[in-house]
Amino acid sequence: MKAYGKKVWLVPDTYLNSVSKNGFLSHEAICVINTSDVDAEIRMTLFFEDREARTDFSASCGAMKTHHIRMDKLRSASGEPIPRDTPYAVLLESNTPIVCQYSRLDTSAAEMALMTTIAYPVED
Amino acid sequence: MKAYGKKVWLVPDTYLNSVSKNGFLSHEAICVINTSDVDAEIRMTLFFEDREARTDFSASCGAMKTHHIRMDKLRSASGEPIPRDTPYAVLLESNTPIVCQYSRLDTSAAEMALMTTIAYPVED
Amino acid sequence: MKAYGKKVWLVPDTYLNSVSKNGFLSHEAICVINTSDVDAEIRMTLFFEDREARTDFSASCGAMKTHHIRMDKLRSASGEPIPRDTPYAVLLESNTPIVCQYSRLDTSAAEMALMTTIAYPVED
Amino acid sequence: MKAYGKKVWLVPDTYLNSVSKNGFLSHEAICVINTSDVDAEIRMTLFFEDREARTDFSASCGAMKTHHIRMDKLRSASGEPIPRDTPYAVLLESNTPIVCQYSRLDTSAAEMALMTTIAYPVED
Repeated sequence: MKAYGKKVWLVPDTYLNSVSKNGFLSHEAICVINTSDVDAEIRMTLFFEDREARTDFSASCGAMKTHHIRMDKLRSASGEPIPRDTPYAVLLESNTPIVCQYSRLDTSAAEMALMTTIAYPVED
Repeated sequence: MKAYGKKVWLVPDTYLNSVSKNGFLSHEAICVINTSDVDAEIRMTLFFEDREARTDFSASCGAMKTHHIRMDKLRSASGEPIPRDTPYAVLLESNTPIVCQYSRLDTSAAEMALMTTIAYPVED
Repeated sequence: MKAYGKKVWLVPDTYLNSVSKNGFLSHEAICVINTSDVDAEIRMTLFFEDREARTDFSASCGAMKTHHIRMDKLRSASGEPIPRDTPYAVLLESNTPIVCQYSRLDTSAAEMALMTTIAYPVED
Repeated sequence: MKAYGKKVWLVPDTYLNSVSKNGFLSHEAICVINTSDVDAEIRMTLFFEDREARTDFSASCGAMKTHHIRMDKLRSASGEPIPRDTPYAVLLESNTPIVCQYSRLDTSAAEMALMTTIAYPVED
């Protein structure tokens, strides 16, 4: 199938809330669709407000698959989670075109709140 | 009227929650507007994390009409619903230009949560 | 100031819920920003699932102003409101470039739910 | 790193609710990512429905950093906050390419509601 999308995407507003007050865990997902015939290897760069950017996170999405990447479950190359309660932003760089959508589910106020947006694609 | 929009659209984050706790059913809609003079026939390809993509879903939107396609009510050519509680993603291919917006209503935590985004359009 | 944006915009998912269960009224707004030096006269076409499109709604946004157009307060040329509990979609055509964002606030499940997206711009 | 994004962005729907009913303060954020090698100096112009536009707000985002700009904490050059309960819209102009996402958290109905969208980028 034709490889739809772009190779570079950005999400400026990411934030992992450490509080969950009902059965649903507060979490973020960067959801990827890969319509190409090759697996997508995705390098992530995390930007912060008060510390250096980190390049030790990555993810993948198989050919003709989707991957709803749970940011709260993601681990760095050395096994570390993304820090909680810390404003950050994400740059994604893939070897093959993909489309990315960012969603957040928050249950810190007991009931569920949701938000979503297609991420920002960089033109080739 | 001029046919606004694009023929190919993608939604990376789709998910049908099986839980509804108030009078509003948890559901997703892919909302289509068709400003062209011909009916839109829309082929859908569903992508999953752990199984092959499916091409047996489709929908339509009349000329000069809108169609808020309820994904929970959609049935495949053989009558099957989209699996619940399963991360998926959708590629839409239309014979005429359309504009697509994806929305989710979730009542699994009793109160209502909403999210929406214009889908990702593929340039011709 | 430079006139930023586009003259034609679409919103596929609009819906006025007739139920409000707390002090905040369920409503939709199409929010317009006009950075140009002329007032924006905005023609709206409303598309439905089961009836003919309507062209008897319009709005305006002054030069160097914003207008958060409340769709529940909008009236047609003959004084009619937009029908409630009816899926529809909106095409906006302005005489001068504008930027449009669509937002919905829903209190039908008592607590508040919000969703928003930049509308779909048509390239010139 | 390559400077991704655009220098000019618009957000048509901004609104600071003065009511907060749980431990989370109702607020808005314009979240910026700056992948360039120079600090971003961001001029803001605020547009209103019933008064003149204001140009006395600004913000910054360091090179290779993110800044989740809290609009409720922002102050004008003369120390004034953005007026509450007032529909407004924002134009952002940066000296270096950035990507902007707008998010709102509302707790005026006690439980939390969230909404987000990538802002509207102006092509160079």
